[in-house]
Amino acid sequence: ALALKGIAYDQEPVNLLKDGGQQFSTKFQAVNPMQQVPVLKINGIILSQSLAIIQYLEETRPNPRLLPQDLKKRAKARMISDLIVSGIQPLQNLTFLKQMGEEKNMEWAQHNIACGFKALEQILQHTAGRYCIGDEVSMADLCLVPQVFNAQRFKVDLAPYPTITRINKALLELEAFQVSHPYRQPDTPAELRA
Amino acid sequence: ALALKGIAYDQEPVNLLKDGGQQFSTKFQAVNPMQQVPVLKINGIILSQSLAIIQYLEETRPNPRLLPQDLKKRAKARMISDLIVSGIQPLQNLTFLKQMGEEKNMEWAQHNIACGFKALEQILQHTAGRYCIGDEVSMADLCLVPQVFNAQRFKVDLAPYPTITRINKALLELEAFQVSHPYRQPDTPAELRA
Repeated sequence: ALALKGIAYDQEPVNLLKDGGQQFSTKFQAVNPMQQVPVLKINGIILSQSLAIIQYLEETRPNPRLLPQDLKKRAKARMISDLIVSGIQPLQNLTFLKQMGEEKNMEWAQHNIACGFKALEQILQHTAGRYCIGDEVSMADLCLVPQVFNAQRFKVDLAPYPTITRINKALLELEAFQVSHPYRQPDTPAELRA
Repeated sequence: ALALKGIAYDQEPVNLLKDGGQQFSTKFQAVNPMQQVPVLKINGIILSQSLAIIQYLEETRPNPRLLPQDLKKRAKARMISDLIVSGIQPLQNLTFLKQMGEEKNMEWAQHNIACGFKALEQILQHTAGRYCIGDEVSMADLCLVPQVFNAQRFKVDLAPYPTITRINKALLELEAFQVSHPYRQPDTPAELRA
């Protein structure tokens, strides 16, 4: 969202694995009691939760827009974003996987991503153009790309989801998605760096 | 949200336990491929995901408003909503509990709700007035009440969360929250009916 809107920012990496998880530090907990990334400090406030952050950016820096002008399309963009952020993401993230126990990790992550993608694929067949909602990049696309990245990390077979795969590919051609790719961050481990 | 905004609606119950879960029926899946409630049919579109639904209502029927006018407060309202909807709710709902296995059900639901409430309590100490964001009912409150209901269902000790408890009590005094209480729905089992 910051890259698409051309907003300059300083980045402070939080390593979720190192030191037992830097998100659990007293310092970070003062910033986000939920002990999760991302967090954005902006205009004198501290915000967590990706969609709250994106929508604050949208309301304070509207160009280029990340929610469609048409109200029904806006609703669909939010619906797809929520489907990913609350319907898939929490059921394959670190907190969840720790609770499932190591031996079931991969299996459940794959299952939950596949369930979500099956639904998402059907929904996108009605909403998508080049991107999730028609031909304009929206908040939904900002949720799709990291979720597909995670699906690949968990070796989910993406063959049953041609629409998801096609949109993801189209998005990765855009510079904003390239510069924010996990393998191109200041704290990307050397062996993964793109 | 419908009750607060005074929008008339017809309600079609979907029993998540009966018939192996009515949300898995072919009929319901055509309405929401994600096989989850709620779903709202409105203005010729079908919407799922609670926050997408609420925000569509907000944008098409702005009075009374459910997001504060002040942009920073709006952001905090969305942040709290997302914290509950994507940070707590998925880690204690039916899908999650099925995956955890019956013997661990209660324990993990309690743990995840407590973790979320600990963070939420801290955040609310900075944002709350009578309700989650100052003295106006907002989307955040619409998320809080059902989450506290679930916490009570899972017998979570609420003593460590005085702000959450106080706000929940204040909200339950409002008619819109009373008529939408789970124990007052057309499909509430007779033994639970209020």
